[in-house]
This record gives sequence, C-alpha cells and structure tokens, in this order.
Amino acid sequence: MRVRLDLGYDGTAFAGWAAQPAQRTVEALLAQSLARVLRLPDVPRLVVAGRTDSGVHARHQVAHVDLPRELWSAAPGRSDVPPGRALVRRLTGVLPRDVRVRRAEVAPAGFDARFSALRRHYAYRVSEAESGPDPLRRHEVLDLRRPLDLEAMSTASAHLVGLNDFAAFCRRRQGATTVRTLLEYSWRRPVLGEPDDGLVVATVVADAFCRSMVRALVGALLPVGLGRRDVDWPAQVLAGRARDARVGVVAPGGLTLEQVDYPTDDQLAVRARAARAVRRLL
Amino acid sequence: MRVRLDLGYDGTAFAGWAAQPAQRTVEALLAQSLARVLRLPDVPRLVVAGRTDSGVHARHQVAHVDLPRELWSAAPGRSDVPPGRALVRRLTGVLPRDVRVRRAEVAPAGFDARFSALRRHYAYRVSEAESGPDPLRRHEVLDLRRPLDLEAMSTASAHLVGLNDFAAFCRRRQGATTVRTLLEYSWRRPVLGEPDDGLVVATVVADAFCRSMVRALVGALLPVGLGRRDVDWPAQVLAGRARDARVGVVAPGGLTLEQVDYPTDDQLAVRARAARAVRRLL
Repeated sequence: MRVRLDLGYDGTAFAGWAAQPAQRTVEALLAQSLARVLRLPDVPRLVVAGRTDSGVHARHQVAHVDLPRELWSAAPGRSDVPPGRALVRRLTGVLPRDVRVRRAEVAPAGFDARFSALRRHYAYRVSEAESGPDPLRRHEVLDLRRPLDLEAMSTASAHLVGLNDFAAFCRRRQGATTVRTLLEYSWRRPVLGEPDDGLVVATVVADAFCRSMVRALVGALLPVGLGRRDVDWPAQVLAGRARDARVGVVAPGGLTLEQVDYPTDDQLAVRARAARAVRRLL
Repeated sequence: MRVRLDLGYDGTAFAGWAAQPAQRTVEALLAQSLARVLRLPDVPRLVVAGRTDSGVHARHQVAHVDLPRELWSAAPGRSDVPPGRALVRRLTGVLPRDVRVRRAEVAPAGFDARFSALRRHYAYRVSEAESGPDPLRRHEVLDLRRPLDLEAMSTASAHLVGLNDFAAFCRRRQGATTVRTLLEYSWRRPVLGEPDDGLVVATVVADAFCRSMVRALVGALLPVGLGRRDVDWPAQVLAGRARDARVGVVAPGGLTLEQVDYPTDDQLAVRARAARAVRRLL
C-alpha cells in the first residue's frame, strides 16, 4: 500500500535529500525513522518529488513509500486516531526539529510522488541590504548586500519561460533530457516586508527541474540585476544549449522548495505515464 | 553626539539584551563592536527601547549611543559614504550573523531610545500543528502541538486592553510602577500561511512593558485557548493586582520585538520627560 508523506525541512544541516553513505540526509533520516516507528524489518525505499541538493530547504516536499497493508492498519498509537495521524505523531516524536512530516495518508491509485507531479514551485531569497538579511531568516536568504535592478531581471527572466532545452543550466547527464517547461520565473520585493529589509524573492515554477537548474537560473540573473550583464544575456545562454561556464550556481541556502502540484486523482496515473515517457523519449 | 541604531537579532544564542558578566549578550557584543570599529578607548554605554530577555528575538530594536562628535565625522570607510552607512558596513563586517545593525544615524535633539518611545510592538508565535512548526521557523515559534480556540482567546485578550496595573503579569521590583497602557492584544492565524501550517500569532502593543510581561500575558491566554480556563479568567488575574503563580511565563523563543514607535522629532523631548515622570510617580 502506497502512503503519501508531506514534509518540510531546514536543509542547513543536511547533505541534501538523497541518501549517501556516512552523510546526514533527509531521505536516510526519514526512512530510518519510518522503519523504527513502524518496526519494519528493512529501511523502506522513498520516492520524492524534488531531490533537493545539499543545503537546500523544503517548506512543502512530497514523498511516497510503499508499506505492507497490515502494518498500516496496525499503525502504533491509540486506536481512535486514524493511522495517518498516528504515524505523524510517532514520526514527530523521533525526528529532529529540522525535519517535520506534516501529513501521512494512503495515496490515491496511480499516485507517484515523482512522476505524478505536475509542477514544482521553488523560491530563491536574496537580501540586498548592506547589513545583511534579517537574522531570523539568515539560513534561508542569500546575503548579497548589493541593490538589484528587478525590472531588468524580470524582463530577462520572462525570456526564459516556456518549453525549452535548459542544457545551459543543467549538469550534463548521459541519456537524460534537459528539455523542461519553465512556467514562471519572476522577481519581486515582498509587499509585507519593511523596505529597508531588502528582501527579494524569485519564484521559479516548472514541470520538473534538472540538477542544480534553479540555482543556475538564479546565477544567470543576478549579474543582470547587478548591471554586469545585458538583459538579453540569459536568453543567449539558453540558446547555446550547452552548459555555460559563465553561469554561476548560487549558494544553496537561499533556495526553498515551496510547493508541489498534483493533478486530480483520476489523472494521477495518466500524468505519471506521460512524465515517464517524456523523460525517456526526449 | 547621540547616534540612533536600528538593529535586529536572533535571540536563540544570546542571554538577552543586557550585558552580564561571562554571558553572550547583544548589548555587550554591540558595545564591543562599536568600540572596535570606532577605535574607542572604552566600551560605550548603550540605551535600548526593549530590554529583551534571554532567548527573545528582535526584528526591529532601537538603541542609542553617545559618541564624541569628532569620531562620528571621522568614521572609518570611504569618504564619499555618509558616516552612518560607513558605520553600518563596518559593524556588518565584525558582527556575527545573528545580530545586524540595519541603520545608524545622528539622532534628532531630545531623542532617547528608551524614554522617547511611544509604543513597543511584540509578536508571540505559536504552532498548533501536531507535527510542530515549520522547520525554517522553529527558532521563533512555540511548539505547542494543540489546537487553540482563537475566538475565546481574542475575547479574553480584549478585556486586558487599556490603562491597567499589570502587577499580576510583572516580576515585582521595588519602587517600580507596574501601570501600563496595553494598546492591543490580539490573536490571529496569518492569512498567507497554509492552513495545515498551524501558525498562530499574538500581537501585543503597549507604551512599555515590565519584565517578562508579554510572556506572562501569553501564559495567561494559552489556558483559555486550550479550554482549561474560562474566558473571564485573565481579567480576574489582572484585577488581583499581584503576581499570580497560576500564570505561567511561556518560553522565550516564540517572542519577537517587531517594532518601536517614536513621536515626530519635535515631540521627542516632551515624550521622554513624560515617560520618565510616569515611571517615577506611579
């Protein structure tokens, strides 16, 4: 039986999502915690919507895990508590405070945390303030300390939106397509913040991202905002269709996976088949 | 010459604002940093709007320091940069990332960071979520894990607003008045947050606060929100006019000084005289 897990983490002290030997990773910690609270004989395999890199945060990440049905119905906790809530409570008790499983529920038929996802929403936060970011937000904001030309950045970002080959912003991987649909790439100053806070937020939404793509997209735009590159430059880099050494990959701490969208239940399997086919074909 | 400093800090690793021997405090760190970047012979004395307790945060705190005039005009840094900005840059270079001086400027005549202040705005953040607070906000949110009745809390809080003797919510101090004007005490769920985030924010605004008063005010309201005390109970405690052992002082990590208001420049000295007189007389 497939269980959907909704979770969030402060990526500062994690070597990313994906389990790696001798590293503190979200995947390994969560899989071990599941094995512990459900008394599984083996550490279960997890599938995730966004395989975040080392130091990258997630406010709303989605994963799935396949569990024996009898384990789910016999989930520990009081019998009047639904198994999903009981599992959340048990996980909350064993997980450190920098990772939280917010919800656990039986996934609808055809659900795959990775392939059923329609869109991933990332935010990249930058502080323009000469005095650096708000101390309470310093772990999730890039400390740039220079003013940005958001109008130029917005124009340049808009030119990258659409169905494109993002090879220029991807780490090369044999046999993997770098074609993605970038649905939104915008820059704004939050209206609620004090003007002197100097916080700037990039919203980056796509059907999927290749490795370090968001951080390369931000790395291509900051020089535009600082007046070091023309507004046309990021589109020229994109058109090159090959990893461009002039594009820096910005620091992971400013990046947060904010949201993952899924279709309605009846479209989950269709979407998963389509996504798998696209990754194979292109 | 008096210099106004606007600053913020993550209080987690500080033993509060006020300098104490062998403790890491914001006051001592800031005073030492000022002495260092301005090459002062002695560590200067600082006066602050809100003397936050150990573990309490400040997003917008205000302090003042009196400096020899010649030091200010000869502030280090490039000569084309105004002295205030140069000082902010130098302080940013030496201060750790959990405290930031956002602005430094010559204070208007009659300005006193403590006595000229009209109002202090505090926020107290609580997470109702069974899975705990957003990991990225965990240092500034109380991990309550229980649902709160905000309607009951709002009603009860409103009964405390006004010019009252808050002795019930203050640590007793010889010769100090406990009369304060509580201008706002409200509870809300942020509209921008996801519902399952479970964040609840109390806004507490007064002309001034006595020691641990905000945390006692919150401590008196949480039992109402949890259904353990009647809506009338906090007002009864207030009417007792003496420190009430039934009122818990909640954990400091949820508390943040958000804002300090000052009158227009021509009213600064008048306000300071009035505030000093009130503290003496009552």
